[in-house]
Amino acid sequence: MPKMLIAYYSRTGNTKALAEAIAEGAREVDGLDVTIKPIQEVQARELLGYQAIILGSPVYYGTMAWEVKKLLDESVAFHGKLSGRVGGAFATSANIAGGNETTILAILNALLIHGMIVRGCASGDHYGPVAIEAGDARSRDQGELFGRLWGELTEKLFGGPA
Amino acid sequence: MPKMLIAYYSRTGNTKALAEAIAEGAREVDGLDVTIKPIQEVQARELLGYQAIILGSPVYYGTMAWEVKKLLDESVAFHGKLSGRVGGAFATSANIAGGNETTILAILNALLIHGMIVRGCASGDHYGPVAIEAGDARSRDQGELFGRLWGELTEKLFGGPA
Amino acid sequence: MPKMLIAYYSRTGNTKALAEAIAEGAREVDGLDVTIKPIQEVQARELLGYQAIILGSPVYYGTMAWEVKKLLDESVAFHGKLSGRVGGAFATSANIAGGNETTILAILNALLIHGMIVRGCASGDHYGPVAIEAGDARSRDQGELFGRLWGELTEKLFGGPA
Amino acid sequence: MPKMLIAYYSRTGNTKALAEAIAEGAREVDGLDVTIKPIQEVQARELLGYQAIILGSPVYYGTMAWEVKKLLDESVAFHGKLSGRVGGAFATSANIAGGNETTILAILNALLIHGMIVRGCASGDHYGPVAIEAGDARSRDQGELFGRLWGELTEKLFGGPA
Repeated sequence: MPKMLIAYYSRTGNTKALAEAIAEGAREVDGLDVTIKPIQEVQARELLGYQAIILGSPVYYGTMAWEVKKLLDESVAFHGKLSGRVGGAFATSANIAGGNETTILAILNALLIHGMIVRGCASGDHYGPVAIEAGDARSRDQGELFGRLWGELTEKLFGGPA
Repeated sequence: MPKMLIAYYSRTGNTKALAEAIAEGAREVDGLDVTIKPIQEVQARELLGYQAIILGSPVYYGTMAWEVKKLLDESVAFHGKLSGRVGGAFATSANIAGGNETTILAILNALLIHGMIVRGCASGDHYGPVAIEAGDARSRDQGELFGRLWGELTEKLFGGPA
Repeated sequence: MPKMLIAYYSRTGNTKALAEAIAEGAREVDGLDVTIKPIQEVQARELLGYQAIILGSPVYYGTMAWEVKKLLDESVAFHGKLSGRVGGAFATSANIAGGNETTILAILNALLIHGMIVRGCASGDHYGPVAIEAGDARSRDQGELFGRLWGELTEKLFGGPA
Repeated sequence: MPKMLIAYYSRTGNTKALAEAIAEGAREVDGLDVTIKPIQEVQARELLGYQAIILGSPVYYGTMAWEVKKLLDESVAFHGKLSGRVGGAFATSANIAGGNETTILAILNALLIHGMIVRGCASGDHYGPVAIEAGDARSRDQGELFGRLWGELTEKLFGGPA
């Protein structure tokens, strides 16, 4: 059974709430094991245990919080071992056009450098789900949609025959 | 008297409306001559006549419309001659996180490659003003604010003594 | 049998040469039909006939040539229909750090907005293969490697049982 | 006399060497006080003492090292106070197209969010100087050129009359 990790950094609870919407969507996919936790509780080496890794951050100065980057920097210890796995990113910010896209794309870039597989969404938030402040019905829907899309891709690539 | 060009591509009128808000802000700066027009009416060589060049586009697939890129591609004929001038960008999109930031940053990158000087804004839309669909009071305020900031920078760099 | 399109814009032949290296790598993947052609000969609607779409451009002002963007802009006519397919990008430039990465990422962004699936490479050029000027053995190797990786992903997602 | 800070994070000495080339170029500008030091020795609040802030990082996973991001995150304490000052960025990486551009642009984005003024260069490395591994004559020249360009801009904006 393929495993997905949704790890987030959240001070105010906004990014955590979006992580939970994503987890809800991912859990609708049969045969996928979904873990959600704060990024501070994730050891870099632990990432090797997941077929899908979804990382979320508030937007600080147009990109991820340093705590999220620290985990990525530490993952260099096993560089190449995540190649071919599924990746994704999400972000929350105070403003529209306040850095959500650049933050998500910076995380996706890091995952591409690991050789991972990412996907977009043809409707709504294209690169990954986004919430402004605490979010709303729209951001929850986007979170669930992305969770489902990433989950289905993971299942397609790593799920065994029934 | 330094001259600023605000050139926009607009099918629906949304990007034109944001261009007008920027022009309004820029016109508050003393001693600055502001021209606003559709990008289709701008010849590449004409860019040489301005000390500040502000370009706006709707978001199409995460970046500027090809009509805007065409003008930039044609500007290679006098590459280097815009070095040290002031640049800026603005964008309109259908969705939050629908590509506004990546569009603005793509235009800014092109202007940096020309050797131009750009600036951000510490509040609101940081990289350049953004409107969702037809925009609202917030996007008009951001447009005016950026017009003023870019105008003041142009005046500071190119305005003569009184 | 899944089909891959490698479409390039090339004036000097540099981008065409990199496209050919990618095609060579992709052709090593069993059960994949590979088409390579100049982007000017590709009609937007034709894209619907491929399970994998790989686009290449020289770097002009930090992003793709307007001719490449024009094809992407025209693809809005069937937006959503490419969702779940495989995408990729490559670029050639005159300089190191002359815009190769921003060009590749701009194309990848557009493909993500179409809902497509992209992947990176843990070694060498991470986001897509790059050549400086006419390229060299390194860039040909990177082209072949990416062709193979994108081909294998396409085969995994779209190839039927033997 | 305007003050410029060049702060770098360097484990191998590569980023430090590029910082030194930039400092050399900046010191050619009359009436500019140039300080160069490791980023670990820079307190966020100290940034307020400079009219120009130039930050350099090795490329780790397509963007700046977390130690550089930490300084930027801490600078939120005086957000808005750097508005209108001069910013710049530089990077070193192991590979061509290995993330140099995305790293420099991520730092520039952060500086734009602070409301700072940045500039590009019409020749060579457009967004900021880049070295592959230990660098070479080309990267040293680019470093000096950018140091001079950023220095001249700082002098123009903040230098007093003779």
